Amino acid sequence: MKPKKISLSDIAKEAGVSIALVSYVLSGKEKEGRVGPEIAQRIRVIARELNYQPNLLAKSLRDGRTYTIGLIIADISNPFFANIAREVEDESRRNGYTVIIGSSDENADKAYDLMNVLINRQVDGFIIVSSENSERIVTHLQTIGMPFVLLDRHFPAFDTDFVVTNNAKASYEAGVHLLENGYRRIGFVAYRSVMFHVKERIRGYQDALRDRGIVAEADWLKEVQFDNMATEIRTAIDELLSGRVPIDAIIFSTYGLAVNGLKYFNERKVRVPDDVGVVSFGQAEVFDLYYCPISFMRQPIDVLGKRAVEVLMERLQQPDNPHRQVTIDAQLIARESSQRKPE
Amino acid sequence: MKPKKISLSDIAKEAGVSIALVSYVLSGKEKEGRVGPEIAQRIRVIARELNYQPNLLAKSLRDGRTYTIGLIIADISNPFFANIAREVEDESRRNGYTVIIGSSDENADKAYDLMNVLINRQVDGFIIVSSENSERIVTHLQTIGMPFVLLDRHFPAFDTDFVVTNNAKASYEAGVHLLENGYRRIGFVAYRSVMFHVKERIRGYQDALRDRGIVAEADWLKEVQFDNMATEIRTAIDELLSGRVPIDAIIFSTYGLAVNGLKYFNERKVRVPDDVGVVSFGQAEVFDLYYCPISFMRQPIDVLGKRAVEVLMERLQQPDNPHRQVTIDAQLIARESSQRKPE
Repeated sequence: MKPKKISLSDIAKEAGVSIALVSYVLSGKEKEGRVGPEIAQRIRVIARELNYQPNLLAKSLRDGRTYTIGLIIADISNPFFANIAREVEDESRRNGYTVIIGSSDENADKAYDLMNVLINRQVDGFIIVSSENSERIVTHLQTIGMPFVLLDRHFPAFDTDFVVTNNAKASYEAGVHLLENGYRRIGFVAYRSVMFHVKERIRGYQDALRDRGIVAEADWLKEVQFDNMATEIRTAIDELLSGRVPIDAIIFSTYGLAVNGLKYFNERKVRVPDDVGVVSFGQAEVFDLYYCPISFMRQPIDVLGKRAVEVLMERLQQPDNPHRQVTIDAQLIARESSQRKPE
Repeated sequence: MKPKKISLSDIAKEAGVSIALVSYVLSGKEKEGRVGPEIAQRIRVIARELNYQPNLLAKSLRDGRTYTIGLIIADISNPFFANIAREVEDESRRNGYTVIIGSSDENADKAYDLMNVLINRQVDGFIIVSSENSERIVTHLQTIGMPFVLLDRHFPAFDTDFVVTNNAKASYEAGVHLLENGYRRIGFVAYRSVMFHVKERIRGYQDALRDRGIVAEADWLKEVQFDNMATEIRTAIDELLSGRVPIDAIIFSTYGLAVNGLKYFNERKVRVPDDVGVVSFGQAEVFDLYYCPISFMRQPIDVLGKRAVEVLMERLQQPDNPHRQVTIDAQLIARESSQRKPE
C-alpha cells in the first residue's frame, strides 16, 4: 500500500535539470539567487506532483530519528487541552517535527495503550498530559529510555522533565482576590482526584483563607466525580448555598466545573456577583459570553505548549542532562464576577 | 528502544498456570465461568505488570492490519472537531482500533504532510475532516488504494465514502424558523471559502428566503476570512446593522463566527433577540451561557463520528463495495435568541 518512493533523480529527470540543482532548490537555498525563479518554481511543482518527501527519509537514515512526537492528552474534548495541543503542534512544526496525538479520556489504561501504539509507531519522544494513576507510563518510558516531558500535570514522586502551571499560587491568588473584594465565605469546587495539580489547587485556596485569618468550614470544599460531574456539581452547589454557613463566593478549579456550575446558577436564578462571587480556572471564551464576565486564572497555554516542546527538543539533544522542571505562573484576569456591588 | 515482547508463556510461567488458561482469560472469556475469579484476576495483574500487548501483534501478523486509524481534523482547537474526534475515538475503540490524530490547522499543505506521516506509520485507513483545497489528499489516497472516509466535509467532484451533515437543509430550516418568528431581513455570516459545505449552507439560506417571497439584499450575505475572523466579523456586523436595509436577524454558519459575533453584540450593546434574532450552527455549551440562550442547528456529532467509523470498518472489510455516502440531518434547537418579543 505504500506509495512509490520518489528520489531527487526522478524530479531532476522530469524537470530536465541536474540532481544537484533539484537538491539545491528543495533544501530551501534558492533564495541565494543562483537559480532563476521559474526553474525553482518548476522544480517545486514537480516535486509536489510526484509527492516527494523532502529530506525526511534521508534525515531519518542519517540520525535515526523519525521527527515525530507523540502527544497524549487527557481529554481532547476539553478546550484547554485542545488548545494546548494546537500550541504543541505549532511549536513542533517550527522545529521540523510532526505531532501525532492520542486522547486518553482521563483513563490510565487507555493512556498506556496509546503510549504503546505510539512507541510502535516510532515516535522520537513524548509530551504527556497525564491522567490519574498513570504513573506506570512514567516508569515504563524511563525503563526503555524514551524521552518525554510531562505537561500541565506531573508526579512529584518521580524525577522527570515537566512544564506545569504553579497551581497552588494560582488558587492562592484567586482566594486573596475574593477576600480583598469583600467576600468572606469562599467555597472551592474541584474534581475528586489524587492528582498533584488538583491537591495543589486546594492547598493554595486553603492557605489563602488561613493567611487572611478566615476559619474555613470543611464543607466549603466540594470534590465531585469527573464522570458524574453534571449531577454532582448541582448537589455541591446546593450544599454550598444552603449549608450551615452558606458561602458567598466560589472558586471553580476547572473550566468544565465552571461551565456546569454557571448553568446551574442560571437555573436556580442565583446572580453573579451579588449572590455569589466567582473566580475560575480555565478558558476565556465561554466566560466572555456569560451575562457577567467571569474572572479567571489565565493559564499560559501558549507558553506551556511552547516550553514543553523546547524541553523535549533539549532532551533529544542531551539525553543525560539533569531534568528540566518548569513552573509557570497563571495570571488573574479580574472581571465583574468577583466584584461585589457595594452594599 | 523497544520493550521486550512479553508472550503468553511468560505470563503463564509467572502465574504458575497453563498457557491455555492465560489465553482463555486474556481473550476475555473468563466470564463463562471455567476459571476462578482469583486466578483470572491474578493473570490480568501479571499481564499488566509485564506490559503484555494483548493480541495486537499476533492479530497484525495474521491479517496484515495494524488496527490503527489515522484521523486528520481541520482544527483541533475548534470544539466541534475536538468533540467529533472524541466520538471517533470511542467508536474505534469499541471496534478494537486505536486512533492517532493530526490537526491540519485548516491548511491543505499541513494536511497532506500529516497524511504522509500517518501512511508511513502504517495506519489501516483514514477518517478526514478536509481543509480547503485538499483534493490532492483524496486523489493520492485513491491512487495508492488506501481506505478513507471524509467526515463533515466532502468534495462532490470525487466519488468517495463520506459522512456529512445535510448543510443546505439545516440552513434552510434556520431561515424558515426566523421568518416564521416574524424576522424579515435575515443576514448570513460565513467563512469565505470554496468548500462545498460552506456553499451549501449559503444556498439553504438563500432558498429559504426565496421560497418565502423575501427578496434578499446581496449585502445581507457576509463572507469573512478564517484567519482574520476576529476583525472582519466586526466590520461584517457593522455593515449588516447599519446598511441601506438593516437586518433584523443573523444566521452564523459556524460556532467560531457566532462566539465572536455575540461578543461584539455585547460591546455594541446590541440586544438579542429584540435588536437582532440569532440562529447559529455549532455547539451548545457556549450558547447555554449567553444571557439569552442561543438557538442553534444541532449537528449530530455523536452520529457523525460513529457512522464515519462504521463506514470505514465496512470499507476495510469490503474494499470493492460501492461508496457509502451518508447525509445526516441537523436538528433545530429553538431557544430565546430567535423569539422576538411581540411589539
